[in-house]
Amino acid sequence: MSTRKSPPGKDRHGNSYDASCPTRQVLDRIGDKWTVLVLILLVDGPVRFNELRRRIGGVSQKMLSQTLKSMERDGLVRRHAIATVPVTVEYSITPLGLTLATLMDQVRLWAERNLGQVIAAQHRYDAAAQASDRAA
Amino acid sequence: MSTRKSPPGKDRHGNSYDASCPTRQVLDRIGDKWTVLVLILLVDGPVRFNELRRRIGGVSQKMLSQTLKSMERDGLVRRHAIATVPVTVEYSITPLGLTLATLMDQVRLWAERNLGQVIAAQHRYDAAAQASDRAA
Repeated sequence: MSTRKSPPGKDRHGNSYDASCPTRQVLDRIGDKWTVLVLILLVDGPVRFNELRRRIGGVSQKMLSQTLKSMERDGLVRRHAIATVPVTVEYSITPLGLTLATLMDQVRLWAERNLGQVIAAQHRYDAAAQASDRAA
Repeated sequence: MSTRKSPPGKDRHGNSYDASCPTRQVLDRIGDKWTVLVLILLVDGPVRFNELRRRIGGVSQKMLSQTLKSMERDGLVRRHAIATVPVTVEYSITPLGLTLATLMDQVRLWAERNLGQVIAAQHRYDAAAQASDRAA
């Protein structure tokens, strides 16, 4: 083997500013609000599908299923089917998911704490846009 | 005035798990990959529109315009039109945007550093799915 352009396998690093780098898709998925909300709920221990659905206001069964499937594929969560009647499905966070959850909880807190400032900025922006419409 | 249900104005806090709370939309927008990539580029100082477009691989003019407009409305960036011929448009980060950029840079780094692990997990998941297809 000769020189390599990028390290292979697990040590591979990405570049988010390069359109052809798969980091782009990872960044897209981990920033998804459902992913963020699921990840944070799993930090304290495994949670059943129905319980996740109950705790995340407004998420549909289909959207939650898709989110969990994608998170499982990316190695962020693990799915456990428990042989009850009917079958119980439970999700737990992986060590990789845990490193992301800590970060994402800060993102969630940022959104919750700065909501007032964001809404105030929106009102200022909309008022300025209206004023310039009137002047035109 | 009597008792209030939630603090008004700038001190208002949100709850991301409540479907009717506007934090949900904020979480959605700040997690958007274009928002993340723009925000990080503005940390070191104002950047012109065309320069942003050049540095963020694969972003279209329309998508970048929409992202910047939405970020301006949310109070994360400021737009400056400079009276050159043709007009030069430059964007700078606000103090509010700066608090988010620090966090988002960690999210970007997480995605870049863990790309190898995510891809390895995807390969395992896809191989297991194929094996169970064959067994069925």
